[in-house]
Amino acid sequence: MKMVSARHFDLRREVEYGSPEQNEAVQNIVKAVKQEGDAALLRFTEQFDRTRLTADKLRVTKEELQGAYDQVETSFVEAIRAAAANIRSFHAKEKRNSWMDLQPDGSLLGQIIRPLKRVGVYVPGGKAAYPSSVLMNVIPAQVAGVPEIVMVTPPATGGKEGIDPYILVAAAEAGVHEIYRVGGAQAIAALAYGTESIKPVDKICGPGNIYVALAKREVYGVVDIDSIAGPSEIVVLADDTADPAYVAADLLSQAEHDEMASAILVTSSQRFAEECQAEVLRQLHLLPRREIAEKSIENYGAIIVVDSIDEGISVVNRLAPEHLEMMIAEPMAHVGKVENAGAIFLGTYSSEPVGDYFAGPNHIIPTNGTARFSSPVDVDDFIKKSSMIYYSKEALLQNGETIMELARREGLEGHARAIEIRLNKEGKAGN
Amino acid sequence: MKMVSARHFDLRREVEYGSPEQNEAVQNIVKAVKQEGDAALLRFTEQFDRTRLTADKLRVTKEELQGAYDQVETSFVEAIRAAAANIRSFHAKEKRNSWMDLQPDGSLLGQIIRPLKRVGVYVPGGKAAYPSSVLMNVIPAQVAGVPEIVMVTPPATGGKEGIDPYILVAAAEAGVHEIYRVGGAQAIAALAYGTESIKPVDKICGPGNIYVALAKREVYGVVDIDSIAGPSEIVVLADDTADPAYVAADLLSQAEHDEMASAILVTSSQRFAEECQAEVLRQLHLLPRREIAEKSIENYGAIIVVDSIDEGISVVNRLAPEHLEMMIAEPMAHVGKVENAGAIFLGTYSSEPVGDYFAGPNHIIPTNGTARFSSPVDVDDFIKKSSMIYYSKEALLQNGETIMELARREGLEGHARAIEIRLNKEGKAGN
Repeated sequence: MKMVSARHFDLRREVEYGSPEQNEAVQNIVKAVKQEGDAALLRFTEQFDRTRLTADKLRVTKEELQGAYDQVETSFVEAIRAAAANIRSFHAKEKRNSWMDLQPDGSLLGQIIRPLKRVGVYVPGGKAAYPSSVLMNVIPAQVAGVPEIVMVTPPATGGKEGIDPYILVAAAEAGVHEIYRVGGAQAIAALAYGTESIKPVDKICGPGNIYVALAKREVYGVVDIDSIAGPSEIVVLADDTADPAYVAADLLSQAEHDEMASAILVTSSQRFAEECQAEVLRQLHLLPRREIAEKSIENYGAIIVVDSIDEGISVVNRLAPEHLEMMIAEPMAHVGKVENAGAIFLGTYSSEPVGDYFAGPNHIIPTNGTARFSSPVDVDDFIKKSSMIYYSKEALLQNGETIMELARREGLEGHARAIEIRLNKEGKAGN
Repeated sequence: MKMVSARHFDLRREVEYGSPEQNEAVQNIVKAVKQEGDAALLRFTEQFDRTRLTADKLRVTKEELQGAYDQVETSFVEAIRAAAANIRSFHAKEKRNSWMDLQPDGSLLGQIIRPLKRVGVYVPGGKAAYPSSVLMNVIPAQVAGVPEIVMVTPPATGGKEGIDPYILVAAAEAGVHEIYRVGGAQAIAALAYGTESIKPVDKICGPGNIYVALAKREVYGVVDIDSIAGPSEIVVLADDTADPAYVAADLLSQAEHDEMASAILVTSSQRFAEECQAEVLRQLHLLPRREIAEKSIENYGAIIVVDSIDEGISVVNRLAPEHLEMMIAEPMAHVGKVENAGAIFLGTYSSEPVGDYFAGPNHIIPTNGTARFSSPVDVDDFIKKSSMIYYSKEALLQNGETIMELARREGLEGHARAIEIRLNKEGKAGN
């Protein structure tokens, strides 16, 4: 793990937009599903997933969903239940009510807050199928009150046998019972436009490969989409009160995700930097995923030594990391200075996996420096607001002239007249 | 205004993504400004705006801003102040606090809510420069607590003399004092990447022509952007208690915006439909912008007769209009059934211009059917959230095994070890 200067270090990497060929392939898939519905869906599933299905087999049955429970350990079910309860409880606190402001002139102004009606969650196949991600995508939607949450996932994430039973159990525990065995760009197109078997949704979320990401971009506007995640990142801000073995373990837990993942130590202590560097090497060699972690550490890992915790925080604010751990003497005395970080883990015991799996806040967090302007997934991502204006006659008579002045200033005489016609009639009626 | 059947009517229109030539032109402009800074900015300003500037003249001076007040009527300043006060007061009610959940085991979980640090507002030139839009973009950011709000606008929106003084007064009243005379894709690039004269921002909002829209899409990810608005729409839901002259005036106030604007009447009364149709024709011919309004009414206007208010509301929900007026006997008894509408105007006196200029809620509202999943601009568009996890030792000892089980199930041994190393050390220490 190399020591670098704070000055030129940046977490941001080029965002991948796919090759022209990939974009064209995705556009063709989306168009075909939009036009042909199930027929195209089944054709692409045979072509890309090597699975021949009929339309009536697309949906996972109640029996399969129940059967998944027999294929997983009871301890897993219990763990998922405990995690789901925590995630549900945290997200419930984010929920807001519609509100109204009652003006003295009788007018009512407000915001009506409603859940989206139907949300689609994409769950990728293979090793990227994480039960924890199912919880993190589904539960906020459910807490928001979304009445229909539907899941799509490639037909054989669990090998030839079908969908990974751990994914099915996580889905059932999160409260999803409408699941389709379809993946890739074709699944995204089906969610956006609907087919004979799959009703269209209002929003699509969940991670996927480049084809899924491009398909989401392609259908954006027809439906809402979540933001497309970059490689994962952690910055640990530590002083010499921290345990270098803990810090090293946390850095490596990030590095093992992906060769592109980034794990950064920012510390006010040269000695701690060196101890931590040694610990990373020691622990790295014992990791099952050491090849991935090693490349991540080599290419995107770094140790930045700063003069003070305040200087460290200004480095953090510039980097705007997805995850920030503050393992310093008094983290609560410094957290208020952190401007840009997706999720902040404070103190010795708040190892990042606590948040990845269990504590309650969402683990889908802005990457690639976008914590400067965006936020972890939460209930707000599954609601929509409508403004409400119930203007009183008194208010209109009082303010009509001012409204007309502003409208005429903008050259919108029709706007002014919509007010004037009422003032003329109602003003007279009122006298 | 043609009568149509509800069944096949749709508000959604194709979204414009620009020609390949326009996209390429924008990419080149953005790249040049990113690489060359002010030099490119000044070059493009000369090329596109026919205005030769030097870097030290980019920023509007305090004197110019003050001078603008001498060029506008006092009544305009008063009207803008009254509108700004209402908008500020409404948006202040949207504001949320950071919050914390204190768990019995000593853990603290929460969401830290902070304003963005620096926001750029684009104000288009010519007739599209609306003082009301300046208020609607700036005030929510200001209420959110954004410390730096900067405006960019083409150098001669007010003709050869410089920037339209009404825009400058609106900006000053909204609280913006950092204004640059630069427009087009080059202004967007400057806000995203920064130049010698203009510091980069975290988010860019405000309407613009196709080049501005494409430039915003181009820099999205480097900064946040607002959503790109389609043509404006209104649906009026009326029964025969409504005044056809009022309804016609409101429909026309929408139609005069733009030839692409859409004004729809949904009514449960055939007689009312016919009266309203006649009124639209009558009033249309008296409008200064009748050519625009006429094309809008012809191409995108419609009257839909339904059997009942409930059927009308289901049409509204399918259309998901930007603006909905409910001019029916008891609007409050029906508003709860409206699922999809950006802004809802209730009763006889809530003519849409009341909301466009004055009442308080934002006039930047989702168009093109996107009210199904998106919301009017509000304070939430100018904040970011960070999750906070301060896990206690007790909580970690209690839940560590469960977290490890979930991590190992996902094949992420490094995640499990970050917990295990603590359990091993702290567990012992605790006993």
